[in-house]
Amino acid sequence: MFEFTVEATSGAARAGTLTLPHGAVETPCFMPVGTQGTVRALSPNDLRAAGASLVLANTYHLHVRPGEDVVGRLGGLHRFMGWDRPLLTDSGGFQVFSLEGSRTVSDEGVEFQSHVDGSRRFLSPERAMEIQWSLGADVAMAFDHVVPGGADETSARDALERTLKWLERCAKRHAELKASHDGTTARRHETSDGQHANVPSCHQTLWPILQGGSHRALRLEALDRVLAMGPWTGLAVGGLSVGEPKAVTYETLALLEPRLPPAVPRYLMGVGFPEDLVAAVAGGVDLFDCVAPTRNGRNGTAYTADGPLNIRNAAHRDDARPLDPTCDCETCTTFSRGYLRHLFVAEELLGLRLLSLHNVRYLIRLTAEMRAAIRAGDYERWAAAWRRRYTQGETT
Amino acid sequence: MFEFTVEATSGAARAGTLTLPHGAVETPCFMPVGTQGTVRALSPNDLRAAGASLVLANTYHLHVRPGEDVVGRLGGLHRFMGWDRPLLTDSGGFQVFSLEGSRTVSDEGVEFQSHVDGSRRFLSPERAMEIQWSLGADVAMAFDHVVPGGADETSARDALERTLKWLERCAKRHAELKASHDGTTARRHETSDGQHANVPSCHQTLWPILQGGSHRALRLEALDRVLAMGPWTGLAVGGLSVGEPKAVTYETLALLEPRLPPAVPRYLMGVGFPEDLVAAVAGGVDLFDCVAPTRNGRNGTAYTADGPLNIRNAAHRDDARPLDPTCDCETCTTFSRGYLRHLFVAEELLGLRLLSLHNVRYLIRLTAEMRAAIRAGDYERWAAAWRRRYTQGETT
Repeated sequence: MFEFTVEATSGAARAGTLTLPHGAVETPCFMPVGTQGTVRALSPNDLRAAGASLVLANTYHLHVRPGEDVVGRLGGLHRFMGWDRPLLTDSGGFQVFSLEGSRTVSDEGVEFQSHVDGSRRFLSPERAMEIQWSLGADVAMAFDHVVPGGADETSARDALERTLKWLERCAKRHAELKASHDGTTARRHETSDGQHANVPSCHQTLWPILQGGSHRALRLEALDRVLAMGPWTGLAVGGLSVGEPKAVTYETLALLEPRLPPAVPRYLMGVGFPEDLVAAVAGGVDLFDCVAPTRNGRNGTAYTADGPLNIRNAAHRDDARPLDPTCDCETCTTFSRGYLRHLFVAEELLGLRLLSLHNVRYLIRLTAEMRAAIRAGDYERWAAAWRRRYTQGETT
Repeated sequence: MFEFTVEATSGAARAGTLTLPHGAVETPCFMPVGTQGTVRALSPNDLRAAGASLVLANTYHLHVRPGEDVVGRLGGLHRFMGWDRPLLTDSGGFQVFSLEGSRTVSDEGVEFQSHVDGSRRFLSPERAMEIQWSLGADVAMAFDHVVPGGADETSARDALERTLKWLERCAKRHAELKASHDGTTARRHETSDGQHANVPSCHQTLWPILQGGSHRALRLEALDRVLAMGPWTGLAVGGLSVGEPKAVTYETLALLEPRLPPAVPRYLMGVGFPEDLVAAVAGGVDLFDCVAPTRNGRNGTAYTADGPLNIRNAAHRDDARPLDPTCDCETCTTFSRGYLRHLFVAEELLGLRLLSLHNVRYLIRLTAEMRAAIRAGDYERWAAAWRRRYTQGETT
């Protein structure tokens, strides 16, 4: 049910297959982000057509709206959003700690204010597990304390200790939920705040998140202590791409990589742009998620083999070429740059969809190319050629 | 190339087939409206999946942005918007006369201000023909002077006389454009304002618009004088659904219907809601267009067999049923009302698309049902049963 096989390597880069209850995921893999139970502007058919195999949804957002009880009553997150392939939910930790407005952190958990209605809410490791269990994704993430990129060692140490204690509580509560679930039919269970929630009939695994900020000693200690609590079916690297210099991200990856168990998939959270994926795969990462392809798409930026382009640029007005002649997506096989520019200039909704679709497809094709290069034992050479073209191409 | 065959009748209601250069259109037919060269929130694939056979685009909007020269350089409107089935363009008359801001009407044409950049523009019968020729739709509409629903007889008479003179000029210019076009390759021609435009390789027919306001004598005179200028491959009834009581619309149709040539398709412009289509088909109308299904969809209103519903209503929060259990569209076969409500409450783009898609599919299914009832010779009984269910069903 939760297996991972590395099928080829090229340097530290790996190509593998991750088996989850809702299907197999080839790695390296990019997950589109369905923040509120929908990848913005895209339908499940669009995502399947783009080749997406694993989609991320946000526990925090679905908890505050519509609420995991509603999602549970409507058959769980897969049924709710019409997505039959694997799903991963984050724990809400990242959102709670990046929220504007007041929040109170204690060892028990985090009290925060809903961005939707201002109501006071409380998330704890136990609640994060229960919510994710109600949502029913294939992979649940541990509830963690995330610090900003520049956090000093004291703050990072404090957050790390809390994250590790919370991981223990997450693992305990997740095991209880699994044990109380007979694996065949939906049941009801009592949540830690005394309410009842629907338990979907699901198999779910829990992945821990490695924290430690930009501090090498903390990062190494975090890894040792998390591994000691295992075994795990996956490991996430968190607290990167949160404002620190990019060099720190890659140094941290380089520090961790030789010490990561090879047979476990590695998920670099919140990354990223095409060039980040190419670099992080070289550093041994298997899984990624990021809102960039859809957010950039809605802003009119399209990734192409020759680098990103801004479709609003007047240069595209009469351009009959597709966004990216090497791309096989619906956008590139149907529409000219001139038409796409018109959609953006005229503020038509279809433009938002078409660029989002293309960018998601772009990243998924990129992971397929990386996979092929790894299988050919040729990743570094491929990456250098890719980078040359991507950074030196036209960027109108 | 432009043929129309009535295959069955039931009372005044007709089922037929209209053959156009880009394909056959079964009637009664509802045309989704692609104002700016895109049916808002829907892709060509969505439209094909919804069963759309004929789409309308707005000459005024495409003229002011991106300009018919751009559309022409990008291969004409079909290629531009990725729509391989029949297209109809309106003439810009309705938009120019409904525009806010200053406009100056003379017998020569209409000077108006672009809503996009405020620039002064001029539309005349000749220019309207040239623009539509550059766009290259299967059907072009004559440039007409539209008066509001309550216009007195003097204004309506004035507008009618102008519309009839303009029709003559439209027919002359359209015939010139056709004659200067060899029917096989794209060529360039000089437009009446001295510029050059691309002539797409297209076959196009011109339909006149019957005006006359709410004045029976003017309506009858308009019909006689337009028919005398014929023959025509289609006739549009304009100046209805512009603020007059609905009874006036149907009285006007009833007045005209016995006098309309049976072998010519009749197009009631700007109509409408499901109940309007059912009534107008009983009055002998073959073709419709309206922004309502997509505009209502974006506002959260969905048509169902049991009447319209507002998906934002709290009653739908936990509702696992589809919008309309009788519907075969992607929205209804994939998503629950609860999920669709969530998309609207959370202001997700996908909701706008899914309800637009459903409403367009609803109207196209409705025309197919009407067609079947006509072929069964049973239209009035079918319409009564439909109306009973539609008006007495749930409307939350």
